[in-house]
Amino acid sequence: MSKTLKGNMLIAQGGGPTAVINCSLAGAVKEAKEYANIERIYGAVNGVNGIVNENIVDLSGETEGNMEQICRSPASALLSTRDKPDEEYCGKIFKVLKAHNIRFFFYIGGNDSSDTLRIVKEFADKEDYDIITVHIPKTVDNDLVLNDHTPGYPSAARFVAEAFVGLDLDNRSLPGVYIAVIMGRHAGFLTAASALAGRYPDDGPHLIYLPERPFSESDFVKDVKEIYNRYGRCVVAVSEGAQDKHGTPIAAKLAEEVEKDPHGNIQLSGSGSLADALSGHIKENTDIGRVRADTFGYLQRSFRMCASPVDRREAYDVGQKAVYYAADKNQSGSVTINRAGSYAAEYKLVQLEAVAGKTKVMPDEFINDKGNGITGEFVKYLRPLLGKDFVSGAARIRAEKIKKKL
Amino acid sequence: MSKTLKGNMLIAQGGGPTAVINCSLAGAVKEAKEYANIERIYGAVNGVNGIVNENIVDLSGETEGNMEQICRSPASALLSTRDKPDEEYCGKIFKVLKAHNIRFFFYIGGNDSSDTLRIVKEFADKEDYDIITVHIPKTVDNDLVLNDHTPGYPSAARFVAEAFVGLDLDNRSLPGVYIAVIMGRHAGFLTAASALAGRYPDDGPHLIYLPERPFSESDFVKDVKEIYNRYGRCVVAVSEGAQDKHGTPIAAKLAEEVEKDPHGNIQLSGSGSLADALSGHIKENTDIGRVRADTFGYLQRSFRMCASPVDRREAYDVGQKAVYYAADKNQSGSVTINRAGSYAAEYKLVQLEAVAGKTKVMPDEFINDKGNGITGEFVKYLRPLLGKDFVSGAARIRAEKIKKKL
Repeated sequence: MSKTLKGNMLIAQGGGPTAVINCSLAGAVKEAKEYANIERIYGAVNGVNGIVNENIVDLSGETEGNMEQICRSPASALLSTRDKPDEEYCGKIFKVLKAHNIRFFFYIGGNDSSDTLRIVKEFADKEDYDIITVHIPKTVDNDLVLNDHTPGYPSAARFVAEAFVGLDLDNRSLPGVYIAVIMGRHAGFLTAASALAGRYPDDGPHLIYLPERPFSESDFVKDVKEIYNRYGRCVVAVSEGAQDKHGTPIAAKLAEEVEKDPHGNIQLSGSGSLADALSGHIKENTDIGRVRADTFGYLQRSFRMCASPVDRREAYDVGQKAVYYAADKNQSGSVTINRAGSYAAEYKLVQLEAVAGKTKVMPDEFINDKGNGITGEFVKYLRPLLGKDFVSGAARIRAEKIKKKL
Repeated sequence: MSKTLKGNMLIAQGGGPTAVINCSLAGAVKEAKEYANIERIYGAVNGVNGIVNENIVDLSGETEGNMEQICRSPASALLSTRDKPDEEYCGKIFKVLKAHNIRFFFYIGGNDSSDTLRIVKEFADKEDYDIITVHIPKTVDNDLVLNDHTPGYPSAARFVAEAFVGLDLDNRSLPGVYIAVIMGRHAGFLTAASALAGRYPDDGPHLIYLPERPFSESDFVKDVKEIYNRYGRCVVAVSEGAQDKHGTPIAAKLAEEVEKDPHGNIQLSGSGSLADALSGHIKENTDIGRVRADTFGYLQRSFRMCASPVDRREAYDVGQKAVYYAADKNQSGSVTINRAGSYAAEYKLVQLEAVAGKTKVMPDEFINDKGNGITGEFVKYLRPLLGKDFVSGAARIRAEKIKKKL
């Protein structure tokens, strides 16, 4: 392919929202304006669904002011979709791209998005249609391989950490057992972020259960009792994807009714049933009076105040880099974030197929031996991603007790 | 009582945490240092429970730096209690106060706290023991009478409004029905705050159900269908205290299992059962595929990032004012916040019995005729309390659609 590839660009957003996915959109649109070989800058409404339905807008005339505001808003400004294109669907996408002379195609999303781009590119290659397809990573789950971390994760992690700062103080002032269920079907990164909340050694969360380690109901009760006996209270973080040693999700075992999505996956988010089942299990198996549970649900992926400044900048960067690789270097692939120094990010373009369809989980060195907490290595990993203005825990009254008189 | 009343001061925090309750503590401690007639500044650990157990600390030596940090932390730095003292309990409190020569007693809490102070004062009067008791208001529910609003409410309201900004964008990008259950057993102020999230006319929440109006399951289904047909999606805010026309909580009607607290009240917080029951009801009675529900739970009262600057300042002010009334004016009572101008706050001291045991609910002019939303009057009321940095809603892509080619 010559360096003179010229034509229109199309960008789309897919999957679940994050706090910074629009920064990637803004970064890509800004960068695209720098290249003479990018003619029109189009955006697909509702991700790939908008492509097959030719529901496409022309972003060329968006003002900088509006794009700056959009950059500060969570969720997909171009709207999203849960469609996971198969071969036939990708064929339809290709037809539309060709009809609109799209030569640069960008999809912001998880590993499914990368796979879509790979298949679309295959269709184009078969017909000798020159096109560059670049995957721009995003996911709150942080489960993309070949990435140190993924845009969207640091902000969701910050929400979780911020939430636990307050929830732990709440539990400290009115003691009992408190359980929070956090997003993450296969990867525990988001749940693990709760660990950053603590400052004092007895600050919560005191127990953290991840999908990477088998969850045992009896060990859970034992762990909670032990912490409760030590501190008179216990704060617990549990991944929605926690599963037993046979791989059966606890949500399916403890909760009576579960809903399945079209892919046959149990519905984990948008329901409080796992949290309620876990608190019910503690109530039944201990004599602890006050047991409460919350499910963070959709709050954690869309809370704008918790957007990490580091995440925002990197999300913008990967958007810019994607267009640079495509328009300047004429390279297809997936933009990845690598860690260089403490802390700095570097970006590399990797093959689409290297990212597609794979899931990264928490490495062993991030999880403690008992499988009910995390290590200092994880804290070292996450801390710089939350932004300099994040502060673990809270100050305490340091005053001494006075002598009793009665 | 002469103006020379002199002795020690005791301050305690009670009930559920707020994001700014420690500002009131900091304000009171700071002010107390100005008065020669206040000798030692004591704090009770775990509210009134700490008083009867003589679990008291000497705050006189707390550094300004630490108090500033504590001021920025949610939940009660002196820890809290759910104890609601009866006559006998108040008698015990009085004994401890007398033993430690407490002449100025401050309790930061809801209307129960005001009642405790009233009874303690009666014990003192009977024994001709000179003591000033001042109630410092706080509650996320905003349900104290004679107050324009209560410290703690604006910050919790800001959490709710911020949350709905993100949740509505999330729902807009992946449409369906989304229901969030918000704290408030009798008063709907906190749920109503969700209305501040919207910017565009079709922004959510589209429906708001408050405890002040009877909740009908059939009207609920009808309302949701109507909005869904209009916008292809529907975002709903429901008070945990929503009740039917007979006063039966919906949580008790729809959810199968409910827990009761020692006072016989149904446990509303710390469980996702109402939200799940409401989403189940929509699933059963409509053919809408994607129905999700979250319960904000304890997050809303302890999230430090959402502390409203106005709330922070006023919470500090009421702490200072309480000590001023007590030490300078030798007056007992409850400090109240009044609205003067748009927007300014004024403080007045009212009789303890005027606030004790009463509950304020949303006035009629804040609720729409259908009882499924709020009015512009409420927006006018709440807006200045959230702080100048709060922004409703989010920007949208304003680009035009391109012509279809296939």
